Amino acid sequence: MSDGARLRVSDGARPGVTQGRRGFASDNAATVHPLVLESIARANVGHASGYGHDPYTASVELAVAQALGVPDAKVFFVFNGTGANLLSLRAALRPWQAAIVSANAHLHTDEVGAPEAVAGTKLLVGETIEGKLTVEGLTRLIEQPNDEHFVKPGLVSLTQSTELGTLYSLSELASLVEVAHRGGLLVHLDGSRLANAAAALGVGLAEVAAGVDLVSFGATKNGALGCEAVVVLNRSLGEGMLHLRKQTLQLASKMRFLAAQFDALLADQLWLANARHANAMASRLAALVGEIDGVVVSRPPVVNAVFATLPASARARLLEDFDFYEWDASTGEVRWMCAWDTTEADVDEFAAAVRSALS
Amino acid sequence: MSDGARLRVSDGARPGVTQGRRGFASDNAATVHPLVLESIARANVGHASGYGHDPYTASVELAVAQALGVPDAKVFFVFNGTGANLLSLRAALRPWQAAIVSANAHLHTDEVGAPEAVAGTKLLVGETIEGKLTVEGLTRLIEQPNDEHFVKPGLVSLTQSTELGTLYSLSELASLVEVAHRGGLLVHLDGSRLANAAAALGVGLAEVAAGVDLVSFGATKNGALGCEAVVVLNRSLGEGMLHLRKQTLQLASKMRFLAAQFDALLADQLWLANARHANAMASRLAALVGEIDGVVVSRPPVVNAVFATLPASARARLLEDFDFYEWDASTGEVRWMCAWDTTEADVDEFAAAVRSALS
Amino acid sequence: MSDGARLRVSDGARPGVTQGRRGFASDNAATVHPLVLESIARANVGHASGYGHDPYTASVELAVAQALGVPDAKVFFVFNGTGANLLSLRAALRPWQAAIVSANAHLHTDEVGAPEAVAGTKLLVGETIEGKLTVEGLTRLIEQPNDEHFVKPGLVSLTQSTELGTLYSLSELASLVEVAHRGGLLVHLDGSRLANAAAALGVGLAEVAAGVDLVSFGATKNGALGCEAVVVLNRSLGEGMLHLRKQTLQLASKMRFLAAQFDALLADQLWLANARHANAMASRLAALVGEIDGVVVSRPPVVNAVFATLPASARARLLEDFDFYEWDASTGEVRWMCAWDTTEADVDEFAAAVRSALS
Amino acid sequence: MSDGARLRVSDGARPGVTQGRRGFASDNAATVHPLVLESIARANVGHASGYGHDPYTASVELAVAQALGVPDAKVFFVFNGTGANLLSLRAALRPWQAAIVSANAHLHTDEVGAPEAVAGTKLLVGETIEGKLTVEGLTRLIEQPNDEHFVKPGLVSLTQSTELGTLYSLSELASLVEVAHRGGLLVHLDGSRLANAAAALGVGLAEVAAGVDLVSFGATKNGALGCEAVVVLNRSLGEGMLHLRKQTLQLASKMRFLAAQFDALLADQLWLANARHANAMASRLAALVGEIDGVVVSRPPVVNAVFATLPASARARLLEDFDFYEWDASTGEVRWMCAWDTTEADVDEFAAAVRSALS
Repeated sequence: MSDGARLRVSDGARPGVTQGRRGFASDNAATVHPLVLESIARANVGHASGYGHDPYTASVELAVAQALGVPDAKVFFVFNGTGANLLSLRAALRPWQAAIVSANAHLHTDEVGAPEAVAGTKLLVGETIEGKLTVEGLTRLIEQPNDEHFVKPGLVSLTQSTELGTLYSLSELASLVEVAHRGGLLVHLDGSRLANAAAALGVGLAEVAAGVDLVSFGATKNGALGCEAVVVLNRSLGEGMLHLRKQTLQLASKMRFLAAQFDALLADQLWLANARHANAMASRLAALVGEIDGVVVSRPPVVNAVFATLPASARARLLEDFDFYEWDASTGEVRWMCAWDTTEADVDEFAAAVRSALS
Repeated sequence: MSDGARLRVSDGARPGVTQGRRGFASDNAATVHPLVLESIARANVGHASGYGHDPYTASVELAVAQALGVPDAKVFFVFNGTGANLLSLRAALRPWQAAIVSANAHLHTDEVGAPEAVAGTKLLVGETIEGKLTVEGLTRLIEQPNDEHFVKPGLVSLTQSTELGTLYSLSELASLVEVAHRGGLLVHLDGSRLANAAAALGVGLAEVAAGVDLVSFGATKNGALGCEAVVVLNRSLGEGMLHLRKQTLQLASKMRFLAAQFDALLADQLWLANARHANAMASRLAALVGEIDGVVVSRPPVVNAVFATLPASARARLLEDFDFYEWDASTGEVRWMCAWDTTEADVDEFAAAVRSALS
Repeated sequence: MSDGARLRVSDGARPGVTQGRRGFASDNAATVHPLVLESIARANVGHASGYGHDPYTASVELAVAQALGVPDAKVFFVFNGTGANLLSLRAALRPWQAAIVSANAHLHTDEVGAPEAVAGTKLLVGETIEGKLTVEGLTRLIEQPNDEHFVKPGLVSLTQSTELGTLYSLSELASLVEVAHRGGLLVHLDGSRLANAAAALGVGLAEVAAGVDLVSFGATKNGALGCEAVVVLNRSLGEGMLHLRKQTLQLASKMRFLAAQFDALLADQLWLANARHANAMASRLAALVGEIDGVVVSRPPVVNAVFATLPASARARLLEDFDFYEWDASTGEVRWMCAWDTTEADVDEFAAAVRSALS
Repeated sequence: MSDGARLRVSDGARPGVTQGRRGFASDNAATVHPLVLESIARANVGHASGYGHDPYTASVELAVAQALGVPDAKVFFVFNGTGANLLSLRAALRPWQAAIVSANAHLHTDEVGAPEAVAGTKLLVGETIEGKLTVEGLTRLIEQPNDEHFVKPGLVSLTQSTELGTLYSLSELASLVEVAHRGGLLVHLDGSRLANAAAALGVGLAEVAAGVDLVSFGATKNGALGCEAVVVLNRSLGEGMLHLRKQTLQLASKMRFLAAQFDALLADQLWLANARHANAMASRLAALVGEIDGVVVSRPPVVNAVFATLPASARARLLEDFDFYEWDASTGEVRWMCAWDTTEADVDEFAAAVRSALS
């Protein structure tokens, strides 16, 4: 199910850019970090060859590759997460191959059938625990008998951190990668929140991406205006990628302004500061609301999302003033997402509103 | 043939963002207009619902519709021109239908087969004069016998201004639209330089788009950072467009920052000032180089491109210092493109360099 | 999982056309009914316009439409079941729409991702009981929140009889059709064994297809050489179908020889005799093996398939002499499929072999 | 333009299977050779594993490979020519690659956009002389500058004999193959009339296919009921082919009956006798009508097609009694196609009718 489907916005006070309020709907409802805008403005001098064929873009591509621990990785800036995921699928799979994903995977639930319609790829949905594919589930899908009547699994896509705000530990990730590679599958990391994952795991980006073949590395939710990167870590992959990026409708003509966004986030590890802060705000929120009678934090926040249940009347009252998603109508579970720009005051005000809605 | 294929950049002085020089390679090598960046910064306050579901984006969509003369037109901001064109094709055509395009159409020569690969659409290439489809050519393609063995023409895409820097007059456009509609075809306008066309024709955007069914309305080459709009003017079209935009990989999560770009360009008709200026710089350049022995302006500049022929040695000398495309190696024709940020001094300096290269 | 994946053929006596033995692997391992071959030979006189534009084909198309109870239904002969299903999806769905199928649906498990790769269609897998979609499962998928991030269900495909050898009763079918239509979905019937279903239900083909919008009507498993028909019962559907059939690679040039196959099967209700016989042979087999210690008939045969469990050693011994599929290795379940040409003697001999394998 | 678009059938005497008359419309309007039907009947004994996994099919696959001179070539029987061509494209090309074809190529003019819609492949149309791609035209398309904005040619498809009834000589073919391979392209042979070509060239099938990478080898027009083969001669190709055939909707369940058709045509070189006869009938017809005042044989018949011009009134009179295509309305050119079953009497009667129509 998609985020949008769950959004219930109050009628009286529809949020928007003119209001300036920060809610808890999504980290993509957040602002652009000022240093990102500054970086864009700094790049806005003179002409630059279009489509990324300028030295500045090349230098930022290199910086991204280095940040992911593979200096000769191929880096392709794209517009959005769905574009990054689709370019990854198209780069990695042949027509008779399928991608294994989790039941909650953005690829499966929030990309309106683009994997099928644009890449022609069938998705095989694996079993999950807490939003994570399991070694057992992956193994089962890899080992099921295959003949010409059924697609051949060619890739597994793991979301880190997951759509449920959970994390694969580095050893879980390593096990899944090993199972996949042993079975002849490539591994794709959907890292729209890779920064939050690295921050939470206390490791660098390179460690989170260790062993995988290609990554959708997200910047938008981490404070960018709108930019992601497909990073091809596996040197045997990447044939035709420039053509494929253009054909997948992801080639920016004024590419330097995508590069500038990653430039800002990599400089002085702004990505890490942003991610840590968002994660910390979620922890703070969970701690505050966890003490309130009637609120149950349903998943311990490990990155920047808090999932909780609370009574319908309280949810309705809160939605009059704040944006957030009702995650599961049947259980009354909501998702409160913190962003790089969520302040302690925002959290405290919101927690107070929760308390008040329940009293 | 694509722009990139023709670009010959000097080795010694590879241009780029760090140098700050303005060349004549493309209007997408240009900078972002400061008012566009300001508009983005102004929109960067507080949270806004993602994916365009915020009131600010809605207000800019309305402004775009009004600018195109159809206040209830449906407006969809997208990332780039290829995205806009592909979304248009996918919205307008059924699987057995083809799009008629000119031999120079960006859809045919510069989108790396995305119409075929992503929309599954066959392109039927019509005869052109000066880069423009003719009524006769269009009629012939519409009237050719059709049965189950051949695609049915469903749409004609006209580029205004064309890839060769030429313009359809309003009456030429009206005739083509009439022929198309009479034949049961929809009309798409590829308007990546719609502003330059309107400025050159001395009419508003609404007049340029009069009678057509859907438009790829470009902002990027007009001073934006990276944004285009698909505008569905025909009220009977547009079913499923929100889904299609997302599936065509063109849905920005932080949509307000695309809206902000159009907001700036529509305010006080900045689009018109930018377009007029770019066009004027091309006129100035053509006038200056037209007087130089050895240079033949091969197409009279009506918008912002100057096409000219000059000897190979002179071309080589110029490319040491300036970026531009060699358009047709066989004839020695080059394309010099002016942008919103090209200055009179740039033009004069370049014309002087041309003179010097030929002396 | 596909049939092929489950097939275990003995090494010593690989079955084949040279042996002349009849096994229990599949009704498509069967022969062509002699009357079908005769019909083909009868049509083999003089030239006929290709691609179905001959009066004989037109007359058989009409006969099929009449058999399905809608004399003005549009009928399109195609090559195989996957072709029929894909043509149906392409005719019925727009790019943002999905097809709801059961977990066992041939479309999902045995068409190697053709729905995704060729039609670009995402499949939504509904809950099933005994291989049948339930009203509850269908309702849940129809009613789930939908926005631009998720495909819109546009069609439900029901297999009659199902891949598990079960049947929707006419009232179950009517309920599902009503739920689908109320939700704005079209209904497709995958009828590769439609004849077996009608025979088992004791009704005509028209009754089985009542209320549905389009049908993949199978002849191959019913005694044809290789032919199916897409029948568009819903008069508002079918735009562009001739083009679509050709584009979906299903247009026979010597079409009269596909028509001749349906001609033979419709004449004197040969389809019904063939289906009844196949069903009866499955009943006979189930009755005979049901009495054998160690054999459990796991699904009561309602059409022409017998599902049973028996010990691994017995299965291995049987596979030395007979073809059949091991359906579920984990439970030891096998599928024994009877065909129009299975004889009582075949059944009795096989039942004796089962008894012997278990003694 | 497709055959169907050009067909003008007389109203009074619409031809069809019930009439038994032989016309000159197409070699796919012809009958099935009796030995082909016999072969099908001979294969119709006992059960055979479906989908080509039976020893008989394997033996015929081997025979086809041997006939094409590459005993370990991979052979895949499919339903029709468009299916064979599409399977070839899908097997040979990656998404960013294009196929070079002639302006008359069946792929381009008679497959209703299937290359684009089903394979996602852009076709690049090369210059032709007498329906044949030239070395110069091919070279130009291969050598044109290529970058990420334009598809990369990956394959050239040559039709032998061509859609205009002409032939590549073996040395022309060898030159084109050399140019293609030197440029990194694969070579596909669209051989729906490969037999006619071999017969006319006086060589074996292996010689005609020498050096090419994969072939659509046609049987339908040569006397089969409906069967073609994709033969992958290049040993480095063919990954995933079984899956691809099924996904391309070309997998017959009762495969033995496709194999049986090739079996009959290869036995005692029936293919050659059929092709020689059809070619001879065209020669006879050309000789007879060439002597008639008012008839100009516009292309000397080298295979089984006669192209001629004659006055409109004569064409109209002829079409009252005989089927054939008006090839080019603007020039009054018609196509008279002979088939394996065209008799000398048919030809003589038709020539007499032509004479009478002109008197």
